[in-house]
Amino acid sequence: MNKEKLSPDKINIANKLNLFDDCWAPKIVAELNDNFVKVAKLEGKFIWHQHKDEDELFIVIDGILTMHFRDKSIRLSPGEMIVVPKGVEHKPEAADGVVPVLLVEPQSVLNTGDQKKSEFTREELDWI
Amino acid sequence: MNKEKLSPDKINIANKLNLFDDCWAPKIVAELNDNFVKVAKLEGKFIWHQHKDEDELFIVIDGILTMHFRDKSIRLSPGEMIVVPKGVEHKPEAADGVVPVLLVEPQSVLNTGDQKKSEFTREELDWI
Repeated sequence: MNKEKLSPDKINIANKLNLFDDCWAPKIVAELNDNFVKVAKLEGKFIWHQHKDEDELFIVIDGILTMHFRDKSIRLSPGEMIVVPKGVEHKPEAADGVVPVLLVEPQSVLNTGDQKKSEFTREELDWI
Repeated sequence: MNKEKLSPDKINIANKLNLFDDCWAPKIVAELNDNFVKVAKLEGKFIWHQHKDEDELFIVIDGILTMHFRDKSIRLSPGEMIVVPKGVEHKPEAADGVVPVLLVEPQSVLNTGDQKKSEFTREELDWI
C-alpha cells in the first residue's frame, strides 16, 4: 500500500500541547512536504541565533511571545504569527509564563541554528 | 540591501480575515521557504480534487470544517488541523456558515488541484 494515498487524521493542537511540559523542546506533529509542523512550549529567554537556509513560522497559541531582532522587538499575542526569514538573527522570549506555539519549518532546521552546541540545542526531535 | 536580512513584521490572523468576504479565494499573508501561508474563508461545499505533488495544511480558526475523503469524513473544530497528503482526493465542506482557515502549502499549488478548470479555480492569488 502506498503511504502517500492514505487519508490522514486530524490533529488537535491543544491536546498535543497537553502531552508534555518541557520547554524549548519542539515536538513534531505532522510532515508537510519538506517541512515539519511542530508544537513547543517556550518560557524565559532563548539565545540569539539564525538559520542560514530556513525560514521559520511561529504561531502563538497562548500567552505573549516577544521576538527580538537586532533592530526591533515584536510582541506577539495569541492568534498572531511571524515568519523569521532565513539569515535573520532572532531571540524568542516568553517573559510572562509558558507560551505554547505552533511552528512550521523545514525538516533540516536545528532549533538553535548557527549556535550548534548551545545548552538549548536539540538534535533529535520526537514525534508526539 | 539584502531583502533576506530584513527583520519581519507580525501578522494578526483575525485582522487579515477581516479584510475580505469572498469565499474559496485564498489570500497570501506570508512566504515561508517554498510555501505560502494563506488565509481563506470557506462556506458550503468545495469540489473533489487532489494535488499531485503538494501536501496541504489546513488550520481551522473558527466554525466547523468537514474534510471529506473517499474513505471517511473528518470534522475539524477551531484549534484543530489536518495535513492533506499529496495525491489524496479530498473535498472541504463548511456546512454551517463561514469557516475561516489558515493554510500552508507550496507556492505551486492550484486551489482546485487536478480540477484545473472548475468554477472554483483561482489561478492568481492576491497578497493581503
